[in-house]
Amino acid sequence: MPTFHVELFEGRSVEKKRELAAALTETTVKVLGCDAQSVDIIFHDVKPENWATAGKLWSDPR
Amino acid sequence: MPTFHVELFEGRSVEKKRELAAALTETTVKVLGCDAQSVDIIFHDVKPENWATAGKLWSDPR
Amino acid sequence: MPTFHVELFEGRSVEKKRELAAALTETTVKVLGCDAQSVDIIFHDVKPENWATAGKLWSDPR
Amino acid sequence: MPTFHVELFEGRSVEKKRELAAALTETTVKVLGCDAQSVDIIFHDVKPENWATAGKLWSDPR
Amino acid sequence: MPTFHVELFEGRSVEKKRELAAALTETTVKVLGCDAQSVDIIFHDVKPENWATAGKLWSDPR
Amino acid sequence: MPTFHVELFEGRSVEKKRELAAALTETTVKVLGCDAQSVDIIFHDVKPENWATAGKLWSDPR
Repeated sequence: MPTFHVELFEGRSVEKKRELAAALTETTVKVLGCDAQSVDIIFHDVKPENWATAGKLWSDPR
Repeated sequence: MPTFHVELFEGRSVEKKRELAAALTETTVKVLGCDAQSVDIIFHDVKPENWATAGKLWSDPR
Repeated sequence: MPTFHVELFEGRSVEKKRELAAALTETTVKVLGCDAQSVDIIFHDVKPENWATAGKLWSDPR
Repeated sequence: MPTFHVELFEGRSVEKKRELAAALTETTVKVLGCDAQSVDIIFHDVKPENWATAGKLWSDPR
Repeated sequence: MPTFHVELFEGRSVEKKRELAAALTETTVKVLGCDAQSVDIIFHDVKPENWATAGKLWSDPR
Repeated sequence: MPTFHVELFEGRSVEKKRELAAALTETTVKVLGCDAQSVDIIFHDVKPENWATAGKLWSDPR
């Protein structure tokens, strides 16, 4: 029953998400020996202005 | 102090959310015996392209 | 596909969680018209020392 | 390695988020003695229709 | 900057987590073309009594 | 209504959490101009074996 929440910067194409979801699921099934049907992955698109590291928004010049 | 995060596919109307929030809160108060004021519910609308089960996006044909 | 994350203070019995999970699922199925099988609920037990409101931990006298 | 998820009502300006991210990081570094570089903050903008307290959506009159 | 939260049933060994973290990171770097250093993975061990599907706790007989 | 989820390595004392909760709330109230009563902070203690960066668990030598 692994459930993934993946926060990533917005702008990834559906193709990339499709490829990533398939690959992460395959990896998980291989390592944990669980059923693919039990793997849920939820992507959260994050705007650069909504993510800060070291106190600085990623929408700001670094 | 229960706090709910509910991830559901986007497209639910405000009327449905209103009804669901009221019903979930009533259910929680009844079962846990807590105060309604202490129940917070946050809905997260998820696009079908952002949710995968068994490695396949829900925006793709199954 | 609603997925619930419910944060509540630790100390609830398994019986209460069983009752709450069943009731929340029934409520959700009734309101949203979705399949019970698609409803996942994950409880997170939170210690009072790990939850603060108004800047004060719930393990401290109020 | 503290990672923050901050849910707040949508409508805050980028300037306010910039100021809040900087201030929260400075506060955390001062209290925990950790490196600023290790502090990640992710804001989640929540619509009032997606947040309920006491069973009532914040988009509804109180 | 992808950040993963992975909820899985408690009981996985550190060896399995080590292997899964390495494999998920490698997969992500390959698909997204991002830097490994930017990938954070946080595992959340969930007790079967804290996870319900279809209104039934996983600690209960199915 | 800001609600914080703060993931940090386990091992912080209650005193540090008390100080951090108070300071984060004060900072938030000052920057956002919201009511202290509306600020909730939930700490999640994470074991080093449950957090990986760059594919390596923090319980492993770096």
